[in-house]
Amino acid sequence: MRLGITMGDSSGVGPEILLTAFSRGEIQYPFFAFGDYEVLTLCAESLGIQVPLRRTSLQEQPRPGEIGVIDHALLTQTDVTPGEINAASGHAAREYVVSATKAALKGAIEAMVTLPMNKEATQLSDPDFTGHTELIGALCGSKDVTIMLASDDLIVTHVSTHVSLAEAIRRVRRDRIQTIIAMTCEAVKKLRDNPKIAIAGLNPHAGENGLFGDEEIREIAPAVEWARDHGMPVEGPFPPDTLFYQAVRRKRFDAIVCMYHDQGHVPLKLLDFEGGVNVALGLPIIRTSVDHGTAFDIAWKGVASTRPLVGAVNMAVKLASKAR
Amino acid sequence: MRLGITMGDSSGVGPEILLTAFSRGEIQYPFFAFGDYEVLTLCAESLGIQVPLRRTSLQEQPRPGEIGVIDHALLTQTDVTPGEINAASGHAAREYVVSATKAALKGAIEAMVTLPMNKEATQLSDPDFTGHTELIGALCGSKDVTIMLASDDLIVTHVSTHVSLAEAIRRVRRDRIQTIIAMTCEAVKKLRDNPKIAIAGLNPHAGENGLFGDEEIREIAPAVEWARDHGMPVEGPFPPDTLFYQAVRRKRFDAIVCMYHDQGHVPLKLLDFEGGVNVALGLPIIRTSVDHGTAFDIAWKGVASTRPLVGAVNMAVKLASKAR
Repeated sequence: MRLGITMGDSSGVGPEILLTAFSRGEIQYPFFAFGDYEVLTLCAESLGIQVPLRRTSLQEQPRPGEIGVIDHALLTQTDVTPGEINAASGHAAREYVVSATKAALKGAIEAMVTLPMNKEATQLSDPDFTGHTELIGALCGSKDVTIMLASDDLIVTHVSTHVSLAEAIRRVRRDRIQTIIAMTCEAVKKLRDNPKIAIAGLNPHAGENGLFGDEEIREIAPAVEWARDHGMPVEGPFPPDTLFYQAVRRKRFDAIVCMYHDQGHVPLKLLDFEGGVNVALGLPIIRTSVDHGTAFDIAWKGVASTRPLVGAVNMAVKLASKAR
Repeated sequence: MRLGITMGDSSGVGPEILLTAFSRGEIQYPFFAFGDYEVLTLCAESLGIQVPLRRTSLQEQPRPGEIGVIDHALLTQTDVTPGEINAASGHAAREYVVSATKAALKGAIEAMVTLPMNKEATQLSDPDFTGHTELIGALCGSKDVTIMLASDDLIVTHVSTHVSLAEAIRRVRRDRIQTIIAMTCEAVKKLRDNPKIAIAGLNPHAGENGLFGDEEIREIAPAVEWARDHGMPVEGPFPPDTLFYQAVRRKRFDAIVCMYHDQGHVPLKLLDFEGGVNVALGLPIIRTSVDHGTAFDIAWKGVASTRPLVGAVNMAVKLASKAR
């Protein structure tokens, strides 16, 4: 097993999380750190984290007891501005992801795990940048990419994510729902035996038979029927407000296909704020991510939790083992 | 203290919940049952519930140890069809509510608590019937009525409820939000000391500064500012997916003003499925309600939980005591 972990935007919590998790022995698998050697060195010194760092290359094997850094040498220590938007670190964070994606595509690493980028910072050098996942999808030539958010209690996927709620409604279309259902089924089968997957409605009470909203009748129900005809273990659409209770408390479902971002994110974060791992679906490579951002307000203070990274690493290893 | 409890649609779980809760001593306050004596008698006999029932009138005092029934005599025992939509019971359920509302308006009862009606059944005789709360609002001549959903963990109100999500977005308007914020503040102050109230955003990440959706900038933030200018203890708009965690787990807020039905209902039901009590806001009378429906699938089987009714009764008493 060889993983790649990108250290994220240097102004954020990525570098310290990587160093802290490693120094505590929480990352149990060999990995390469895709980032900047100077930044990691400065961060370790600033926060008093004892971690042997060494520049390495993908031709070598990661060695136990040290962090092998694929050094992009894009930043010097004077470029580091903890907690502030910074064009240089935004650009560098993008390059780590590009480099790790390419390494994964050519098989030099078996899976990649990403620490947070800052969208605004990266947009200073790449105005077209819309997100981590979209960037990786483009590099992989993947059209339909989506994020699965998985915690111990609940697994959710979404028909759309970072779009306005009005736009999210417009995207509740049969073909898109079918794609997400199929991707969800394929992914959840790698994590659970004989999974049951529920499809959420869009409207309150799932529209109450068309009384308030007909997307369930027009788009969602036909997609569920299509999936069942293709042998997928799905049911729905269900009224959202009872579905999450049924899935989590009654254990009736392993995963829920959600119609918009907050439908899944609100309950998942409420149940286990740090426990959610992002898994990209629809890529030819394995990529997991922490589900938090750069957290500028606490960056370089040594207080950021390592639990999300550890969860993302463990999930990447689980998926990579299944893929072997 | 004199309460009125409407028994709801006879085909549903209302009658047995009332009888069971009373027989177990779970209703600690004197009340009148607004319903049909024959139906309650039949239900008690069918399910073997030992409860003294007596026809009474609002001129009398409720007596301890028995249920005093304000008998509408609209149904005979042969009209009762448990678990089935029934025009007669749908009509009768409406009349109990009309009668209890009038009693509350004239002060014959201090608060009313409602058990579930069946919308489809009532629409068979009253095609314009849109809901329990709307009916009571019309009888009271109240224009802006909304439902607050309160559990021990969380209190939520909504800018809109039983409309499609597309329509809910259209209703996210400054004036409506201001009305709901003001009603929420007034109500929550009766339940909690020095409450803090959060306003949720509509879009994922509250629109991320207008990047996906501008309702936060255009409508919600100005409403919050208005409320703060008027001394209300509110903050927001916040990204929904972290707000519920902050309110419930970190105890940062007592209540959340939600932009649409499921934004509040999904987390509340997930946290405590039976624990939510509906409180109508914007009425000149006190009215609480269970947060479940007629549950035809388990009607007259003696298995329906009494906890929601007990919660609704206790909440009504709490609010009535504050109003004295």
